[in-house]
Amino acid sequence: MSEITELSIAQQAAAIKARKISPVELAKAYLARIDAYNDKVNAFVTPTPEIALKEAKASEAAIMRGRWQGPLHGIPIGHKDLYSTKGVRTTAGSRLLKRHVPKEDATVVARYKAAGTVLLGKLNTHEFAYGPTNAESCFGPSRNPWDLSRFTGGSSGGSGAAVALDLCAGATGSDTGGSIRIPSSACGITGIKPTYGRASRAGIFPLCWSMDHPGPMAHSVEDCAILLQPIVGQDPRDPTTVDRPIADYRAALRGSIKGLRIGLPKHYFYSRALPAVEKAVLKAVDVLKSLGASVRVVNIPHIDHAAAAAVTMYLCEASAYHDDVIGTKGDAFTEQVRLFVELGNYVPAKDYLHAQRFRTLLGREIAEVMETVDVLALPTLPITALKLGQETIDIRGKQDGVFGSLIRNTEPFNLTGLPVVSVPCGFDGDGMPIGLSIAGRPFDEARILRVGHAYQRVTDWHRRRPKL
Amino acid sequence: MSEITELSIAQQAAAIKARKISPVELAKAYLARIDAYNDKVNAFVTPTPEIALKEAKASEAAIMRGRWQGPLHGIPIGHKDLYSTKGVRTTAGSRLLKRHVPKEDATVVARYKAAGTVLLGKLNTHEFAYGPTNAESCFGPSRNPWDLSRFTGGSSGGSGAAVALDLCAGATGSDTGGSIRIPSSACGITGIKPTYGRASRAGIFPLCWSMDHPGPMAHSVEDCAILLQPIVGQDPRDPTTVDRPIADYRAALRGSIKGLRIGLPKHYFYSRALPAVEKAVLKAVDVLKSLGASVRVVNIPHIDHAAAAAVTMYLCEASAYHDDVIGTKGDAFTEQVRLFVELGNYVPAKDYLHAQRFRTLLGREIAEVMETVDVLALPTLPITALKLGQETIDIRGKQDGVFGSLIRNTEPFNLTGLPVVSVPCGFDGDGMPIGLSIAGRPFDEARILRVGHAYQRVTDWHRRRPKL
Repeated sequence: MSEITELSIAQQAAAIKARKISPVELAKAYLARIDAYNDKVNAFVTPTPEIALKEAKASEAAIMRGRWQGPLHGIPIGHKDLYSTKGVRTTAGSRLLKRHVPKEDATVVARYKAAGTVLLGKLNTHEFAYGPTNAESCFGPSRNPWDLSRFTGGSSGGSGAAVALDLCAGATGSDTGGSIRIPSSACGITGIKPTYGRASRAGIFPLCWSMDHPGPMAHSVEDCAILLQPIVGQDPRDPTTVDRPIADYRAALRGSIKGLRIGLPKHYFYSRALPAVEKAVLKAVDVLKSLGASVRVVNIPHIDHAAAAAVTMYLCEASAYHDDVIGTKGDAFTEQVRLFVELGNYVPAKDYLHAQRFRTLLGREIAEVMETVDVLALPTLPITALKLGQETIDIRGKQDGVFGSLIRNTEPFNLTGLPVVSVPCGFDGDGMPIGLSIAGRPFDEARILRVGHAYQRVTDWHRRRPKL
Repeated sequence: MSEITELSIAQQAAAIKARKISPVELAKAYLARIDAYNDKVNAFVTPTPEIALKEAKASEAAIMRGRWQGPLHGIPIGHKDLYSTKGVRTTAGSRLLKRHVPKEDATVVARYKAAGTVLLGKLNTHEFAYGPTNAESCFGPSRNPWDLSRFTGGSSGGSGAAVALDLCAGATGSDTGGSIRIPSSACGITGIKPTYGRASRAGIFPLCWSMDHPGPMAHSVEDCAILLQPIVGQDPRDPTTVDRPIADYRAALRGSIKGLRIGLPKHYFYSRALPAVEKAVLKAVDVLKSLGASVRVVNIPHIDHAAAAAVTMYLCEASAYHDDVIGTKGDAFTEQVRLFVELGNYVPAKDYLHAQRFRTLLGREIAEVMETVDVLALPTLPITALKLGQETIDIRGKQDGVFGSLIRNTEPFNLTGLPVVSVPCGFDGDGMPIGLSIAGRPFDEARILRVGHAYQRVTDWHRRRPKL
C-alpha cells in the first residue's frame, strides 16, 4: 500500500477526483508509515489518527456524493506544532504548553480544513520556533531521514522530516529566519516562504512578528503551489495581511522561463558556502540557463549586515513577546531559548531601531537589483545537514558557527519580506541534500513557483527518497 | 498700515484676488511688525525680508497679469526652523546647524512655494523639536505675546508667538507629542495636526519618526483649512504618506454640525486639568451642543498608559536618530536634549516594543469609541502658559510636572495618528488662552475642521489679540 504515499499531491488529487484512490485508503497508508517510521525521525509529536480517519471518511463520503472540493480534498497533511489546532494539543515545542489545547484554529489551519485536507497530526518544532537547528524541543529534536544522526534544520524540522519520509503529503511550516527553507533544503524537499503579508499568521505562535511568515512544504513546486493557494489573501485576524490580487499559482506554473532574467548575488551568499553546495547550485542555475533564462551577477551593497540586523530583530521581539513568562517560568524553557530571551532583554531600543532602519535600506537595495532582474538565485544554505549538536563547521579552512551558517542566506528575505522558494538541487559527498533558492519581487509568488517548476520538470532531485 | 495684518488669510486672499491689497504691501506690513515686535517674542530666528519682498513682487506681478493662483498667493508665512528651506539657513534650533543651508526644500515648503506664499522667515523651535516648553533653543526661548514672562509652549513655539502677534499670516509647525497644538493653545491660536500619513515629512528634521506630524497654524480654522489644502497627499519622498482621497477642506467648513455626536472622554483628559481650563472647555462643548450636536461621556480604558508609551517612543527613536552625533558632539546639544538623547540609549528594546504594542491597543480602543461618536472634545492642555523655566504646577492640590502636563492630553493622538484641531476657547484668570481640541477619525480632517469652524462662527476667541 505504501506506494500511493509516493505520489505527488497533484497525482493523489487526480486519483481521488477520479475515485481511483479513496481518501480513507490514502490516510491509512500515511498512518501506517507514521507507525513504522515516526519514532526514528521524531517528526509527529501529536499524531491524530482518529481525526485523520474521521476526516478521510467525511471526504470520501462527500466525493462519493459528487462533492469534490478541489485538489486538497482528502489530502493528508500535518501542521507545525506552532499552529493552533482547535481541540488538538498545540505545544509550540514548549514544556509550558504540553497541555495546551486551543479553542480556535489558526486561520491557515481553518483554510486547509475548508479545502478538505485530512489532519495527520502536529509536527515537531524548535521551542517557540526559536532557532534554526531544531535541537531544542520539549519532545527532543527531529532527525534527518537522510541520516538519522543529523539535524533536519528548523524550526520546521518535523515538517521537513515528515514530508521527506512521506509521513504526510504536505505540511505547514513557518519561517522567521529561514525556518521553512532551512529544513526544506536540509531534508531534500520543496518549501515556499510567501511575501510578508500574503498569508495570515493569526493563531500561529509568534517568534519575531515583523519577520514571521507561514508557508507550505511538500516534495514538488507544483504541490507547494496547490498548498499555497487556499492560505493567501487578507485576513481580518491578522492586520499585517494585505488585500492584493491573488494569482492562480498552479496555472502560473505552465509558462516557460524563456527570457527570464536571473540575478546571481555572488558576494555573501557564496562566500562561506561549502564547495559542494556552490557547485550544485551553479549547476542548477546552468539548467535554468539551458531553459532560456539569462544570468547576470548582481551586487547588494550592504548585505553583509543582514545577520546582525536579523539577530537583533529576533532577540528584541521574542523577548518582548515572552516577557510576561520568562521572569516567572524561565526554568520551563530549554536552556538555549531561555538564554536567547534573557539576552534580548539587554538590547537597547536604539539598536533595534538601527536594525529596522537597515531593513529599509536592504529592501531598497534589493528592489534596485530587482529592477534589472526578475528573480535571484542562490544557495538556500551554504552548508548541508550536520550532526545533531554540531556547533561549528570548517568552511574553506575557516571555522563558522552552525547557527550563523544556517540563517546566513535565508534571513535577508525575512528582513525584506520577499517571497522565496527552495527546491532540491543535488547532494553532497555524504549524500545530504542541497537546496536552490529562487527569490522574487514582493507578491510575485507566481513567478518564483514557475521558475522552480521549470527546474523540476527537467530534474528529478525532488523525486529522490531517503531509504531508512 | 498694520491693520491689514489683522485680516484673516481668507480676507487677505479675497482682497489680493480683487487687487485691493498688493502682496508687496502685505509683506511690508508684516515685515514692519517683525521689526517692531520680534525682539520681544523671539519668534523669527532667521527673518528673510529680501526673499519676502522678492516673492511678494513676483506674486504682485503675476496677479496683475491676471494669474492669481489661489488663496495662498501672496500670503506671507513663516516656517518652523525644523523645515528645510533651500538656500535659507535651517538650524532645527541646534548650535550644530547654525550654518546649515539646505540644498532642497522640504516637500511642505515646496508645496507652499508652488501655492504662491511669501516667505517671511524661519521660526524658533525647541532644539530638534525635543520638548514641549520651547525653553531649549540655540536662539533662546520664544516668549508668549500674552505675557512675555511666560512660555509659548513648543516645540513650534516661534510659530505660535508669530501667528498670535500677527508677525505672519500663518505658519508651519510639527507635532510629535503636541508641538502644534500646545503652542496653538498656549498662544491663543488655531492649529491642526492632520492624520499620520496625510502630509509629507520629507525634509523636516525627525524627532520620533513614528509620531512626527507636520501641520499649519493660523488664527482661524478657515485659515488652517486653506493652509492644509496644498500640503496633503502622497509624496514619493515620504514612504509613510498614503494615497487616499483628499477633501476640499474649505468647502467642508460650510456644513452644519446638527446631529454631530461628540464624545467627551472625561477620565484622564480632565483629571489633572486646572478648574479654569475645565470650565472653559465644557462651556465650549455647550456651545457645540447649542449648534445641534449631542454629547456623551466616553471611556478609553487604557488611556492612563499613554504618557509612558509616548515618552518611551521619543526616547528611543530620537536616540537612534541622534546616535551618530551624540557621542562625538554631545557638548553642542543643550543640556536637556543631550540628557534625553543619552537616557534613550538605555531603554531596552522590549520596552520600546511594549510601547508599540500599547499603541495598537490604544488605537483599537479609540476606534471602538469612534464607532459610537463622530469626534472627541477635550482640553488641548490641562494647564495654560506658565512662567518660562517653571517646572512644576499645583493642580487641585497636587504638584504636577510641567513637561508631563503639557503633553498629557495631546500625545494620545500622536500615538494613534488621529487628526486633531485645537481652537481658542477662553482665558484663565491671568488672561492666558485656553484651547479646545476636536479629535477625529483617521483622515477625517474635513469633519474636525467643520466642527471647529462652526464654533468659531459663533465665538470670537480666535479674533482676540495680545497687546504688547
